Amino acid sequence: MKLAVIGTGWIVKSFIDGLKFAPDFELFAVYSRSRERGETFAKENGISTVYTSLDELAASPAECVYIASPNALHYTQSKKMLESGKHVICEKPITVTPDEFSELCEIADKNKLIYIEAIMYMHSPVRAALREALGDIGKVWTAHFDFSQYSSKYPAYLRGELPNIFNPAMATGSLMDLGIYCVYPAIDLFGEPETVSAVSAFLESGADAATAVSMLSKNTAITMTSCKTGQDHAGSQIIGERGSIKIGSISKLT
Amino acid sequence: MKLAVIGTGWIVKSFIDGLKFAPDFELFAVYSRSRERGETFAKENGISTVYTSLDELAASPAECVYIASPNALHYTQSKKMLESGKHVICEKPITVTPDEFSELCEIADKNKLIYIEAIMYMHSPVRAALREALGDIGKVWTAHFDFSQYSSKYPAYLRGELPNIFNPAMATGSLMDLGIYCVYPAIDLFGEPETVSAVSAFLESGADAATAVSMLSKNTAITMTSCKTGQDHAGSQIIGERGSIKIGSISKLT
Repeated sequence: MKLAVIGTGWIVKSFIDGLKFAPDFELFAVYSRSRERGETFAKENGISTVYTSLDELAASPAECVYIASPNALHYTQSKKMLESGKHVICEKPITVTPDEFSELCEIADKNKLIYIEAIMYMHSPVRAALREALGDIGKVWTAHFDFSQYSSKYPAYLRGELPNIFNPAMATGSLMDLGIYCVYPAIDLFGEPETVSAVSAFLESGADAATAVSMLSKNTAITMTSCKTGQDHAGSQIIGERGSIKIGSISKLT
Repeated sequence: MKLAVIGTGWIVKSFIDGLKFAPDFELFAVYSRSRERGETFAKENGISTVYTSLDELAASPAECVYIASPNALHYTQSKKMLESGKHVICEKPITVTPDEFSELCEIADKNKLIYIEAIMYMHSPVRAALREALGDIGKVWTAHFDFSQYSSKYPAYLRGELPNIFNPAMATGSLMDLGIYCVYPAIDLFGEPETVSAVSAFLESGADAATAVSMLSKNTAITMTSCKTGQDHAGSQIIGERGSIKIGSISKLT
């Protein structure tokens, strides 16, 4: 199956590494807004074709597209690719709003296409191990999930620059970027919440530096914190009647 | 100053141990609803007088009273003692509702009496150390406070008994009993919250087994969890721009 990638960041390189284990895919094209970045990336990764126009990519022979652009672009790019009959695997968060997601699911269904989020947790074998461990600790009454990681871009922000990751116009910030890694296991393990509340501490740019959530799912009282301007050292914890589970890294489940 | 204690639990013994460092106090009486428990306790602790009637205690020569009864009794007992002209030091939570607390503060003011809560955190020298550490880690964007401790009474509850601590008529449960230890440092360090949300996971008895809180104080996104039916192993954490503070036991600040 002919595959194109949108984006040239480190995560795309990582995705390409993973492709070695998926011989049915033939990576032939990369899209970048910058011709120069695209050419460099293509050369480094043995990719034959560079697109700098989404229309060209949409008209290309790509059968599926991996999207790893800034969050704010996920919706329009996914829509264009799905409407062109291409399967889409999109980085998290798959869209910025639920309505956007519903709309794109409908287009995918109508066109009989696979449209899926590249959220590691849901596809990790460690997820099964976590579920098994959960079975050993009895009724879980409370859990706290944290993903707080000091961003390598924060010093630049403090110097007065505006990296994408701290630019709300890019639909980024701690919840979109890190907090989502807490949301997945919480809902996967404990079900959809009956009530949810959240508060954010905002940078002057308008992006959330940190977000705190409290929610109740099937009589389990859950909190989550995420932060891009400080570093976690305590990890996440699930507290059951017969034992507790500590998770050092919620994104990697280690 | 002549002192009486209300209650015969382990915390009263602990309070009496502390009195050795306060030579101005003369412990002369204990109040217990049970004559037998009162007599035993008095003998064990070298106390001369046992009261089983609050009216007798109110009419006694006690100048101050330490109250360590079940939470639901704090208000009425404190009121009676304050109205009888006695200083009151009352175990946490000092009352069950804010209105009760305001009313008793007024009575204390009017009668020129000291009325204070026996909340360890506010009077611990470690509090100053924590504040100092906080000064070293820069702007704090997020913090999580947890006090989850498996109650020694929970097996009895599971056997069908109803210990005070799981009886909502006693105004107990995880938030009243443990969560309060998270509330104090959160507000002390970060100020009164602008918004607060909380959810509880309830036992069939109606007491909360666990409570989860999210709140925003001065642009710091804070969560808290407390649980009486499971055991914490991860502790609490304050995440600043220049470092994080991990706290193993939030009640003892160690």
